[in-house]
Amino acid sequence: FSTASGETVRATLFPGDGIGPEIAESVKQVFNVAGVPIEWEEHYVGTEVDPRTESFLTWESLESVRRNKVGLKGPMATPIGKGHRSLNLTLRKELGLYANVRPCNSLPGYKTRYDDVNLVTIRENTEGEYSGLEHQVVRGVVESLKIITRQASLRVAEYAFHYAKTNGRERVSAIHKANIMRKTDGLFLKCCREVAEKYPEIVYEEVIIDNCCMTLVKNPGLFDVLVMPNLYGDIISDLCAGLIGGLGLTPSCNIGEGGICLAEAVHGSAPDIAGKNLANPTALLLSAVMMLRHLQFNNQADRIHSAILQTISEGKFRTADLGGKATTSDFTKAVCDHI
Amino acid sequence: FSTASGETVRATLFPGDGIGPEIAESVKQVFNVAGVPIEWEEHYVGTEVDPRTESFLTWESLESVRRNKVGLKGPMATPIGKGHRSLNLTLRKELGLYANVRPCNSLPGYKTRYDDVNLVTIRENTEGEYSGLEHQVVRGVVESLKIITRQASLRVAEYAFHYAKTNGRERVSAIHKANIMRKTDGLFLKCCREVAEKYPEIVYEEVIIDNCCMTLVKNPGLFDVLVMPNLYGDIISDLCAGLIGGLGLTPSCNIGEGGICLAEAVHGSAPDIAGKNLANPTALLLSAVMMLRHLQFNNQADRIHSAILQTISEGKFRTADLGGKATTSDFTKAVCDHI
Ligand SMILES: CC(C)[C@H](C(=O)O)[C@@H](O)C(=O)O
Ligand SMILES: CC(C)[C@H](C(=O)O)[C@@H](O)C(=O)O
Repeated sequence: FSTASGETVRATLFPGDGIGPEIAESVKQVFNVAGVPIEWEEHYVGTEVDPRTESFLTWESLESVRRNKVGLKGPMATPIGKGHRSLNLTLRKELGLYANVRPCNSLPGYKTRYDDVNLVTIRENTEGEYSGLEHQVVRGVVESLKIITRQASLRVAEYAFHYAKTNGRERVSAIHKANIMRKTDGLFLKCCREVAEKYPEIVYEEVIIDNCCMTLVKNPGLFDVLVMPNLYGDIISDLCAGLIGGLGLTPSCNIGEGGICLAEAVHGSAPDIAGKNLANPTALLLSAVMMLRHLQFNNQADRIHSAILQTISEGKFRTADLGGKATTSDFTKAVCDHI
Repeated sequence: FSTASGETVRATLFPGDGIGPEIAESVKQVFNVAGVPIEWEEHYVGTEVDPRTESFLTWESLESVRRNKVGLKGPMATPIGKGHRSLNLTLRKELGLYANVRPCNSLPGYKTRYDDVNLVTIRENTEGEYSGLEHQVVRGVVESLKIITRQASLRVAEYAFHYAKTNGRERVSAIHKANIMRKTDGLFLKCCREVAEKYPEIVYEEVIIDNCCMTLVKNPGLFDVLVMPNLYGDIISDLCAGLIGGLGLTPSCNIGEGGICLAEAVHGSAPDIAGKNLANPTALLLSAVMMLRHLQFNNQADRIHSAILQTISEGKFRTADLGGKATTSDFTKAVCDHI
């Protein structure tokens, strides 16, 4: 495949653990049918040791993303409380993935309690409560450090306002708990305010996280772009996914240093259904569409995007997580047929 | 007034800021009509300096709660980023209010997107992210400390399981982010597990906070009693309030050292409508009912509780926050009439 100008773009693919390979296969098929001029560089990154490399994450895998500056990743399992540290976190750190962007839109034809969701969460992705700095002070007393820096806060705030401006959004809400964490969340807000001044056309507001969550479940239509420190982003982006049906339906994309864009399905690896052709590829497909838009392959992005929405809206080929009986291949074929 | 045995109970009342005095008046009237044998010891605690005491919080106010072991508090404003520290936090600290209990039930007759909510959040109320320990490391780098102790975690876990057992609840879910904060949230979970072993009749489970929030908005019926560290409790209890209509409708009660029970309306002081007879007294009334149950004044608690539910369900006297035109006095009178 090649672009109008004949060139082919290389992109990295990390299928990941569990259902990852199946849903990655779905993306490959859909891209084929849509004639997307992408050549995949596929690398195994996951919790199961690759017998060829005996490592969870190779130097080559990271180099591939750094070189291509664009990639797609499937789910990677994060063990709780033991074993290696989360591969998701390692990727964020190694690739400087400073912003996690998750558009969250009600899907026409897939009914939830909400039909008015149209917002984007932008999560600082490198610091805050995810510092990994924890220790026992004395027996029975442990502490963990939340780190907020001016640099990372400005960077994600810049990204959020720039995103709002270039995507026709009107408002940016900074989410915080600065009434309690006056210095850390206070610094985050200070940075957001500085950036807001450079974007007078965008409405800027500050919302305390507890109030934000209450408002999101009562009236999500009040929000547009939300920007926030790491943990609040983790919590709120999943809450928002819940409003439209869950993580199986929400795309995500990580923006990294040097202009990296690593699109990512943020749901789990679902080991219970892995290899059974039962997984829902929607989140990864929609993430792949975000990647295409980043590459300005807008024509293919539009065609694939509407094929996905049509398939979901018709409701004939729903996978088990959405209460249907379709297989991964059924769903994928339906999307391909709509292209 | 007096109990069957003739005795009168003294309880502390902090009407608080803004709309506090009006909604406290509503409670007094309702208690009068229901013949509750309580004598109020009223103290001013709030952000506006009391000209008589020139202090936000007097020693007498604290002593009153310590002596009576039972009280009711209205809203107190928390300034963001400047001025004195939150009075709410000072009260929690001074009175050792270690557990914040918030039952969250759909109100018959008040329609939201959810009709199946019946859960209780139990929030550790003294430590975690609320330690107040923060500092600038170097210019542009700030850190805050989250503190988790074995003692506070065991205490709130004990309370949660005891609550579940004595209130006919079947399941306790511990909410955490121990996949990231392995040591702090890990210790919290360890304590919950230890306590869970003593309650084999209660189902115990652990749910990661992001997943918990997603599940709460998709299917709150899956939860029963939730127990969690301070900040998660702050976030999730407000999210849950949103499911049934907001903080104006949800009661809360703080359990403190030495058996203190300080019931509390957790909504704001709403300075914009203060003094205008427009405030909704429901949250403070329902909190007062929790206080009555704590005192085992079950008869009066039941009568007042159903009078409140009836008034809301009929929908004739709704205050502005619920889209109606009733005044605080209209609503209060309707509740009194139903008793
Ligand atoms: C798996 C976990 C480490 C991760 C996180 O907490 O960031 C996940 O919840 C996410 O949102 O990508
Ligand atoms: C006002 C604020 C300090 C308080 C908190 O964060 O605990 C409030 O949100 C609450 O839940 O009682």
